[in-house]
Amino acid sequence: MSKEKKKVDNKRTVDPAALEVLERNDGQIETAYDRYVQMQPQCNFGRTGVCCRICLQGPCRITKKASKGICGAHDYTIVARNLIRAINGGAGAHADHGRHIIYTLIEMLEGRTLDYNIEDPAKLRRVAQNIGLTVEGKEERELLKEVLEVAMSDFTKISDEPCRWLEATVTEGRMKKFTDCNIQPRSVHTTISETMGQTHMGVDADPVNLIFQGLKTALADYIGMHIATDLSDILFGTPKPVTSEANFGVIDPEMVNIVLHGHNPLLSEMVVRAAREMKAEAEAVGAKGIKCMGVCCTGNEVLMRQGVPLLTNFLSQELPIMTGAIDAMVVDVQCIMPGIRAVAECYHTRIITTLSHSKIPGSYHVEFTEDQAMEKAREIINLALEAYKERIPDRIDIPQMKHKVTAGFSTEAVLDIFAAVNPDNPIKVLTDAIDAGQLRGVVLLAGCNNLRVLHDQSHAAVIKGLAANDVFMVATGCVAGTAAKLGLMNDEAVEKYAGEGLKAFIHKLDEANAGKLNDKLPLVFHMGSCVDNSRAYDLNTLMANEWGIDTPKVPYAASAPEAMSEKAVSIGSWCVTLGMPTHVGVTPEITGSALVDGVVLQIAHDVYGGYFIWEEDPEKSVDVILAALDERTWKLRVHRQAQERYETATISAGW
Amino acid sequence: MSKEKKKVDNKRTVDPAALEVLERNDGQIETAYDRYVQMQPQCNFGRTGVCCRICLQGPCRITKKASKGICGAHDYTIVARNLIRAINGGAGAHADHGRHIIYTLIEMLEGRTLDYNIEDPAKLRRVAQNIGLTVEGKEERELLKEVLEVAMSDFTKISDEPCRWLEATVTEGRMKKFTDCNIQPRSVHTTISETMGQTHMGVDADPVNLIFQGLKTALADYIGMHIATDLSDILFGTPKPVTSEANFGVIDPEMVNIVLHGHNPLLSEMVVRAAREMKAEAEAVGAKGIKCMGVCCTGNEVLMRQGVPLLTNFLSQELPIMTGAIDAMVVDVQCIMPGIRAVAECYHTRIITTLSHSKIPGSYHVEFTEDQAMEKAREIINLALEAYKERIPDRIDIPQMKHKVTAGFSTEAVLDIFAAVNPDNPIKVLTDAIDAGQLRGVVLLAGCNNLRVLHDQSHAAVIKGLAANDVFMVATGCVAGTAAKLGLMNDEAVEKYAGEGLKAFIHKLDEANAGKLNDKLPLVFHMGSCVDNSRAYDLNTLMANEWGIDTPKVPYAASAPEAMSEKAVSIGSWCVTLGMPTHVGVTPEITGSALVDGVVLQIAHDVYGGYFIWEEDPEKSVDVILAALDERTWKLRVHRQAQERYETATISAGW
Repeated sequence: MSKEKKKVDNKRTVDPAALEVLERNDGQIETAYDRYVQMQPQCNFGRTGVCCRICLQGPCRITKKASKGICGAHDYTIVARNLIRAINGGAGAHADHGRHIIYTLIEMLEGRTLDYNIEDPAKLRRVAQNIGLTVEGKEERELLKEVLEVAMSDFTKISDEPCRWLEATVTEGRMKKFTDCNIQPRSVHTTISETMGQTHMGVDADPVNLIFQGLKTALADYIGMHIATDLSDILFGTPKPVTSEANFGVIDPEMVNIVLHGHNPLLSEMVVRAAREMKAEAEAVGAKGIKCMGVCCTGNEVLMRQGVPLLTNFLSQELPIMTGAIDAMVVDVQCIMPGIRAVAECYHTRIITTLSHSKIPGSYHVEFTEDQAMEKAREIINLALEAYKERIPDRIDIPQMKHKVTAGFSTEAVLDIFAAVNPDNPIKVLTDAIDAGQLRGVVLLAGCNNLRVLHDQSHAAVIKGLAANDVFMVATGCVAGTAAKLGLMNDEAVEKYAGEGLKAFIHKLDEANAGKLNDKLPLVFHMGSCVDNSRAYDLNTLMANEWGIDTPKVPYAASAPEAMSEKAVSIGSWCVTLGMPTHVGVTPEITGSALVDGVVLQIAHDVYGGYFIWEEDPEKSVDVILAALDERTWKLRVHRQAQERYETATISAGW
Repeated sequence: MSKEKKKVDNKRTVDPAALEVLERNDGQIETAYDRYVQMQPQCNFGRTGVCCRICLQGPCRITKKASKGICGAHDYTIVARNLIRAINGGAGAHADHGRHIIYTLIEMLEGRTLDYNIEDPAKLRRVAQNIGLTVEGKEERELLKEVLEVAMSDFTKISDEPCRWLEATVTEGRMKKFTDCNIQPRSVHTTISETMGQTHMGVDADPVNLIFQGLKTALADYIGMHIATDLSDILFGTPKPVTSEANFGVIDPEMVNIVLHGHNPLLSEMVVRAAREMKAEAEAVGAKGIKCMGVCCTGNEVLMRQGVPLLTNFLSQELPIMTGAIDAMVVDVQCIMPGIRAVAECYHTRIITTLSHSKIPGSYHVEFTEDQAMEKAREIINLALEAYKERIPDRIDIPQMKHKVTAGFSTEAVLDIFAAVNPDNPIKVLTDAIDAGQLRGVVLLAGCNNLRVLHDQSHAAVIKGLAANDVFMVATGCVAGTAAKLGLMNDEAVEKYAGEGLKAFIHKLDEANAGKLNDKLPLVFHMGSCVDNSRAYDLNTLMANEWGIDTPKVPYAASAPEAMSEKAVSIGSWCVTLGMPTHVGVTPEITGSALVDGVVLQIAHDVYGGYFIWEEDPEKSVDVILAALDERTWKLRVHRQAQERYETATISAGW
């Protein structure tokens, strides 16, 4: 590999630990960073969304010479269809996640698995109440059965009454909007199926109609995600503040190191449990014990609930193997680079796939089944113990970088912290701080990594920029990963990066919670894996209801500075539909149609109040997000003043 | 447009009527034939399936320089994912069709629409019995309610017991195979959702696993299709032999001409009914009456049940407008070129979209709802009457070509015809003819048109070739359209093209049915629209059960000489899974992975008994199809002889 090329590679991350591994590797073992360079230049037809492969006459690419597809489809039809199929991919992925948890709970209720329990009966009751069930006088299992029936109905029904999980978690104004615009999903599965049909060759050619179906699909995605999060909490406990560590320094060369990677907590929770039980077995092979650590959103799941250290995020997932000290990487679903397998071939590391629908050729496969969950977890650990014996000590080289992380901020945990200031009305702590001008608003940081931008740079820049400008930040997924591993998710970061307002706000919370929490609060509040973005939206709904307005008036924006997956496209789309200004730092594949681009940037705004903002430059991203917040805060203040002057009942006009 | 280019265009069909319109048009009005030429050269990455656009880091294209995607996905993962997403598109389209009919029947049962009835109570009872319901003593509406409950369950359930429609319509051997290979779909919608999730970035990288999920999706498609066909028959009657006409000569310049185009009979049946009732209104605008005619599969639906003439098939759908004598083209879903709108702009023709999820910008939209079905049908006809007044007589020029068509061959109709020869065991008429060597086997001709091959040429060549070689042919979709409009779907064609065996077989049926049928039997038996391929497979199951073997031993092949849509990919895939050699005349986008290509050509064969055959040359296609039939006929004979010699119980070994 030429020096010049190496230089490009080595510039592809701002994570010093990842950079150290890349530099030491010197291009010997191929990683995503190399493959990105090899892949250049990338096809601009695909990049701008004007390549259609929906029928066997294609591919059709829109050019000056060929301004329509063979069937006569315009650029706008092609771009819109591709976009909503991407949303559908995201919805399908989350549906898979949610459905798997539903299956597991059914198996548990029917006595076919003894390894799972209702870990959080209080959450069960809260969820049941939210979705309109009578809670009083019911046994836990009876109540869970009813909750599952509603979940199944929201997943599968073909009738058109509203989905209960949607109704229970968004404002009345949103529900009315969805009805008015005919984007109430019938159910998760029905909508996914509809979207496949509607994007078939020769069905819908109308871009606005297609995009509205895309938004419906995004709402179906939201429902599936919310169900997944709620049921996970019932099954494994609602996260509470927890302190741990992040980045490569968490790898302990004296331990058997097991990486948990993917998105689904069903198996990883079991592996963590089994690891704690199998210390003796680890000692028997010469290790001090077993250390689990997480990558991607499985990492976020076990960090949030078990305090398991977070090793790294999406883009650098291949690199831990190159420390020579990872004995097993256990994967479930989503965002798992098949590339990990080739890297592991150069080491002793076992790549272990665990689900029948998610395999990597050449890897170990331990098929996870609900009825043998703990047994399978032990089988996985035994594979890691075997691997440990094959370690080559000379090849072990671990970047010694790690940061303290305070995570575990479920919506409930955040409200508990607010309650220390205002026990009667916790959310008012947040809305008051915005009303008073102490905070400029709230931002949900979400999304992935994407090699189109320098790894972790956009995340870090947006976090620092928003912090300095007094924005209260919640984070999920791989942006939370960046914050964790770069030291932006702890109390030190508050002192270092927070503006005066934000600092005062967090200090006030710290003081009120002194003695209640084990640690001080962080700069960025980790709300969980990417499926947990529903938690962040619950906060938005609470704020809207507190102010008596609909969410399009709440100074609450979303930002995915390094969006990569179809899930991110889907999440971004429901953020918009649910009324949020939504910044995306990697422009999705729609710029080939000015019309479609205009629809998601402007018409979405006019109809739903939420809208997309494309901005790839990290510094400018901060400015556009702040502008979006300020506009809403200003309007809120003006309306408030008008309301007080004219003594009108509410401040909600429009939307 | 240059002369050279025109020449290319004008060579793009063997349909003389379509050719006449194209030549007269002289390239003035752009059609798909022109756009295909403009689109050349097409992207070979997309064409071979090695372009991945599943995440926002892409597009990734496999080349010598970049042998894996950025995530490390091999060509086989990329190709397999693209393939099974295409199958999913087909399944989604058919699911939409089936679900719409379910909704309508529910509306009917609940009294919210008075325009529909149970037209075929005998079919209702047959279907109910097939899917395991008790029929005796039940009222029609009660029985229909139960049938719909099973249909809804097969569409939506997430539990893993077999789908009733699958169990009821395939052999026991097939059901066992599907269980053994873990490809029993949970339901139509659940499987479609699963497939979206499994093909998300970083989930399944294993091509065989992906393809097996693709086959599961194809079975889900089969279930959705079979339900759609069965419920349509209950609602509108099971087709019986009917004689009509096909090709442009059916346009009558003195009538108000309404083209019904798309796939769904729900509205088109109503338009046909309303047209019959509104003769006086047509006379009032100066026409002799109203003439409906069909394009694509809506055309096949109304031809099969109402004897409505078939105007043309998929590829030439824009051309009827260019006769200047079409007053309205009414479209529903699937395979509707958005290009029809631009052509209609040059004429007085109204393009009328009718469904909320299938629009074309700039067209008239009359939103069809079940509760106002007839009212909407009349509204459509009124639009056509208005348009009629705007006709420009000078621009009317209709190619005077048409052929007699005998259609309406539902499985039931075919068995009725066989019953005239063997009332006790109708299917034995067919199996005996094969056993005796009079017929070489059965071929289902299915699929679309595709500009990669000369329009209608492959269809016509395969039909003529198989006819000359004594193959009993059933046809659906746009290949049936070719047969109809080129005069291959009537009794004259039997005399002209059938080999001695086939001719004798059809003559025998004609003689036995003399006096029972209005017309003599055709060369190719029209089984309906593409959703009706389930009818053709029922015939296969009956043959297998008669011989006491599983379908992979039945000399019954499928051929889609001009496949185009994702539905065709899905149908082809279930044909393979259900045990049929399946010829496709347009190689799908998978040749970029020798592994995936090998799986669908060879591993499919080893596991399921069915397999794909890619052959683009029409003459060679005939040879490969015949070879596939002959191999099975020969084996059947050898096994039969062995069975007789050794007095074994069955002739089914393997599969």
